[in-house]
Amino acid sequence: MRRIRIIGIGAGNPEHLTLQAVRALNEVDVFFVPDKGEEKAALRELREEICRRYIEKPAYRMVPLRVPQRAPAGSDYRGSVDDWHAALAESYERLFAEELGEGEVGGLLVWGDPALYDSTLRIIEAVRARGFALDYDVIPGISSVQALAAAHRLVLNRIGEPVLITTGRKLAESGMPDDQGSVVVMLDGEQAFAKIPPEELDIYWGAYLGAEEEILASGPLSEVAGEIVERRAEARAAHGWIMDTYLLRRKG
Amino acid sequence: MRRIRIIGIGAGNPEHLTLQAVRALNEVDVFFVPDKGEEKAALRELREEICRRYIEKPAYRMVPLRVPQRAPAGSDYRGSVDDWHAALAESYERLFAEELGEGEVGGLLVWGDPALYDSTLRIIEAVRARGFALDYDVIPGISSVQALAAAHRLVLNRIGEPVLITTGRKLAESGMPDDQGSVVVMLDGEQAFAKIPPEELDIYWGAYLGAEEEILASGPLSEVAGEIVERRAEARAAHGWIMDTYLLRRKG
Repeated sequence: MRRIRIIGIGAGNPEHLTLQAVRALNEVDVFFVPDKGEEKAALRELREEICRRYIEKPAYRMVPLRVPQRAPAGSDYRGSVDDWHAALAESYERLFAEELGEGEVGGLLVWGDPALYDSTLRIIEAVRARGFALDYDVIPGISSVQALAAAHRLVLNRIGEPVLITTGRKLAESGMPDDQGSVVVMLDGEQAFAKIPPEELDIYWGAYLGAEEEILASGPLSEVAGEIVERRAEARAAHGWIMDTYLLRRKG
Repeated sequence: MRRIRIIGIGAGNPEHLTLQAVRALNEVDVFFVPDKGEEKAALRELREEICRRYIEKPAYRMVPLRVPQRAPAGSDYRGSVDDWHAALAESYERLFAEELGEGEVGGLLVWGDPALYDSTLRIIEAVRARGFALDYDVIPGISSVQALAAAHRLVLNRIGEPVLITTGRKLAESGMPDDQGSVVVMLDGEQAFAKIPPEELDIYWGAYLGAEEEILASGPLSEVAGEIVERRAEARAAHGWIMDTYLLRRKG
């Protein structure tokens, strides 16, 4: 039986780490580190800085995991993700078997919180479903949604009202849901906020949340959508990558 | 100009504190501590333990704030909350003026994350709206929703799908929304989960999340709703208070 700890490390500020996460980092013998190619080099550096700063344990190993390219989603988004998870589960199983000795603890570091739009838990469950004996636990982490709210000093919900957390893809498909006043959008690679009717909506946007490069913008969507699209494109060109998220709120 | 730091301290496990929160705690001169009466004595002890463990600054003051009773909501939930916030804003303003010296930093500790179903940010904005010169910042914290997900090793969203975060009151009024597959329910004092049609739903429930007393239950809602109601009542009687939250997920 191997043991894996899945550790949320926050959204980009090393000090988002919880004390629980620091303790867990120091109990890991082998970190399995997905290598997503050049675009995320800045994130790799940040992750390495977190390890340097907060791991006091003298000996731990870093084992890279080559992440297979995900097929373009086309019409079957769910199917392409399932295939990708299956390929990742096979890679993880092989690495766990090869690299994790008897009694050793493996660690997987997750940006934000493993509970929100992250594949790690599903991949680990898929490894177990393949018959590999594995116990694991989860350490929650500050998500980019929380970093966004803190930076804008926002309460995500209006008093007694719900909050919907959704994806750029869903927003582009269906627009702002009629029955929701507060919608957080994640994973928006296509700037869906600029393609929906902006009337009666405010936006609170942030990129590189928690990190030194953090950029914020907010205002009536009709007035600031174009400016955000521009600033986003400039920042992406300057840094080589971008991660952003935002809250849409119905006025009044 | 006074300065206030609003610090999320996690959901019940002292190690949910982030490194950013620990640093902020150590920069505060005066903590303003709402006193909500006997029911929450256990939470007060936990908060005091957090301060003892993690504040190394030699001198800081704790100033209690008597929290006015909130009028029963009746049909005007929003109005009763607004009145209560106004009363609290008046109390905070008086305390800030009396207790916070020139150049001193005030601190407000918030369970969970200040961005989710918490009044603190609105009250501080109300204090500013009264004309009191005040700067403030927000430190995000691990919420009970995240502690729930970690304890059950859950991803809150299904692949590419949204998550709705709502209240027990809303669930009791409208039931499980037809268009949602994953609904997190907070602030449910009336066990709304046991009053909705349970077909096709699973529940992942937790109380005292992150704390030593943590209780978890999960399964098909039709099979476990009754058991959860019973265990909740027993735990509440034993501890004198309870805080719980849960995820409802449509099967398949």
